[in-house]
Amino acid sequence: MLYDVQYIGNSRGIFCVALVAVTKPVTSLRVQLVKEWLMTTELPESHADLLERPLFAHLATIRPDGSPQSSVMWFDWDGRRVRFSHTSTRQKYRNLLADGRVSFHVQDPENAYRTLEVRGRVESMDPDLDATFYRSLQQRYGSNVPVLDADVRVVIVVEPTNFVAVFGGLTKVETDALTALLEQLDEGV
Amino acid sequence: MLYDVQYIGNSRGIFCVALVAVTKPVTSLRVQLVKEWLMTTELPESHADLLERPLFAHLATIRPDGSPQSSVMWFDWDGRRVRFSHTSTRQKYRNLLADGRVSFHVQDPENAYRTLEVRGRVESMDPDLDATFYRSLQQRYGSNVPVLDADVRVVIVVEPTNFVAVFGGLTKVETDALTALLEQLDEGV
Repeated sequence: MLYDVQYIGNSRGIFCVALVAVTKPVTSLRVQLVKEWLMTTELPESHADLLERPLFAHLATIRPDGSPQSSVMWFDWDGRRVRFSHTSTRQKYRNLLADGRVSFHVQDPENAYRTLEVRGRVESMDPDLDATFYRSLQQRYGSNVPVLDADVRVVIVVEPTNFVAVFGGLTKVETDALTALLEQLDEGV
Repeated sequence: MLYDVQYIGNSRGIFCVALVAVTKPVTSLRVQLVKEWLMTTELPESHADLLERPLFAHLATIRPDGSPQSSVMWFDWDGRRVRFSHTSTRQKYRNLLADGRVSFHVQDPENAYRTLEVRGRVESMDPDLDATFYRSLQQRYGSNVPVLDADVRVVIVVEPTNFVAVFGGLTKVETDALTALLEQLDEGV
């Protein structure tokens, strides 16, 4: 009897797809991690909603000394570019002036193990006149707070170079089924 | 009449404390951003729960070419060190071998604007024998998935050097009150 099980498994909070192929009585057991994630240069349809919804971007930038900085950001996505609001008086602005390479990820609030990482580079950082873009972000995120720093607001435009789609994990039923299968195999060996 | 309003305000997803001091009829209006966050070398009591609870770490590391990488991670906190599980076959492990500086943040799921950033450096990366630590993380996060990569599991121990506590935003009532105050001042000018 041949089992040929392909599954998406939760491995330390990041997910992997494993292919388990066995014969029983067990003459061979191959467990191969064939894919942990999917990297593309176009936004995969399966994860487009994570950029379209007003979720949070967890942004990594490089400080001038080369060490990493990690920040929570609002963002907007127009189908081609990611835009962040920031001010020209802050550390992240100086980081991005020195090194425009960024990476951020977005996590699905309904399934913490379904995430999208976006890698890219800053295309422009221009003044946000009258904080127009920032106000549009406020609207997108359902916020309504006085803007006290319109004079130093900038729009950071990021051109994505790669998308890394990470798929959600096994359901409880799938996990139990796989565990049972592996235990069965253990006994058979 | 003297207004002296100190408030915590939502500014582009990160928060700031602003001090608004005015006299009315308005002879002077000072709006000064006095504090955006609190940086300490010890974990602030106000944000300790974010490390104690099984939340997600949004980790920034440096790739060998100097560009940033952004990842979702499980973690454990013993009051002194942060521990992550990883495997010695993956990119992040190679990143951390080359440059042990990390930054990660944790976001309060009940208040997205209350976050803690932790900056630090890798103290050790040792084999996780029998995936003992990884299994304890599974337990902490309520997961139960077969461990297929125990032979390459490592424990990443991070020594924090700085904590950046970001406080949650204004409540709706506070926002409305501040907006009304600022409008009142606009009219008075």
